[in-house]
Amino acid sequence: MVSALIVAAGKGTRMGRDVDKVFLEIAGRPVLAHTWLQFEQAKTVQEIVLVVRDGLQDSILKIAERFGFKKSFVLVAGGKERQDSVWNGLAALNPASEIVAIQDAARPCTSHELISATIEAARKVGAAVAAQPVTDSIKESRDGKLIDRTLDRSKLWAVQTPQTFRVEVIRRALSEVRKRGLSVTDDTAACELIEQPVQLVVGPGPNPKVTRPEDLAYIELLLQRPP
Amino acid sequence: MVSALIVAAGKGTRMGRDVDKVFLEIAGRPVLAHTWLQFEQAKTVQEIVLVVRDGLQDSILKIAERFGFKKSFVLVAGGKERQDSVWNGLAALNPASEIVAIQDAARPCTSHELISATIEAARKVGAAVAAQPVTDSIKESRDGKLIDRTLDRSKLWAVQTPQTFRVEVIRRALSEVRKRGLSVTDDTAACELIEQPVQLVVGPGPNPKVTRPEDLAYIELLLQRPP
Repeated sequence: MVSALIVAAGKGTRMGRDVDKVFLEIAGRPVLAHTWLQFEQAKTVQEIVLVVRDGLQDSILKIAERFGFKKSFVLVAGGKERQDSVWNGLAALNPASEIVAIQDAARPCTSHELISATIEAARKVGAAVAAQPVTDSIKESRDGKLIDRTLDRSKLWAVQTPQTFRVEVIRRALSEVRKRGLSVTDDTAACELIEQPVQLVVGPGPNPKVTRPEDLAYIELLLQRPP
Repeated sequence: MVSALIVAAGKGTRMGRDVDKVFLEIAGRPVLAHTWLQFEQAKTVQEIVLVVRDGLQDSILKIAERFGFKKSFVLVAGGKERQDSVWNGLAALNPASEIVAIQDAARPCTSHELISATIEAARKVGAAVAAQPVTDSIKESRDGKLIDRTLDRSKLWAVQTPQTFRVEVIRRALSEVRKRGLSVTDDTAACELIEQPVQLVVGPGPNPKVTRPEDLAYIELLLQRPP
């Protein structure tokens, strides 16, 4: 059995106060509904766990109703940090679940084909992540003012979501993170702690996250494009 | 005196055969005309050197005529690699030029404010570059299949153009590159060889390069946005 874990618990402060970015309407639907729809359509996924901020459960149920989502889903309250939210979501998975695809709710352009490709790779390797080669020159700067050095761009990959794992792998990785009191920016970083290999899965097109108000027009353009 | 050096000599193979991306019309103008216009409007810039592929000089002159560009400009033939084209352009600068802003012709969204900000920084530090903080998680992978490690995103910057220098600094840096027979992906990388500090100048908005056909709709959107 394969589960999706959609993390919608972030505060998203860069969008401005009082805006919950996953409920913003873009191209005729809330951001979360675009994301959810792709998991609804991914034939490989049997269950959806949504990690949401406490108090927003009703708004989520309304989205499910409005768009007629039929796949089995569970709502779970988020934690303090992203990694705590993922931990809570993992605890709510169906016990029969072997693979989990963890997704930012605020990435509405992730396609169901990309979701399935990461699931297939995670089955083989144990962990996989949606990725794109880096196209700009990347510099390291400790102070954000002067460049310290140029990195070799040909070895760099930008990673997004889904980040997909065998359930026992991500549980083991995140429990190591918690045991050591660390903070990780993404779930594949936790895999490094337990020396779990992670496969890069190159997506077919852009897979941006709604972060700042100026991202919205671009994301709308991508969502309106014919598939 | 400040010069601009606009590099339009690339082949741009990722756009497809037989397409010269700087002549593509986006939002009512060729890509190059958008870029050129910002240097035309930048009050700090007195001279424009355009490095172009041999045989395309007439098409460039037609653009100058069509858009009524008045600022003094010079056409120079490109070299084999980007760094050779820049070298040829530097040789054609007005001898009175103290600062040069080097620009990809295929970055039509660079604003004249950003150009002037890099010029001001280069006057102080010797070298400066348009930059943006990296927003995705960045991973290093030697084989492009498995992740080797997670980089600390808070120290990473994506750099674009303009890359702006005191003329004697970039001449010295690129002559070191040539002497050692090296190849550099961008002009600020050459500065590392001569231990020249390079200042990051954070631009106000996206500054993408036309690289692949799927970039065009996004760039059109940015160019149509009110300033």
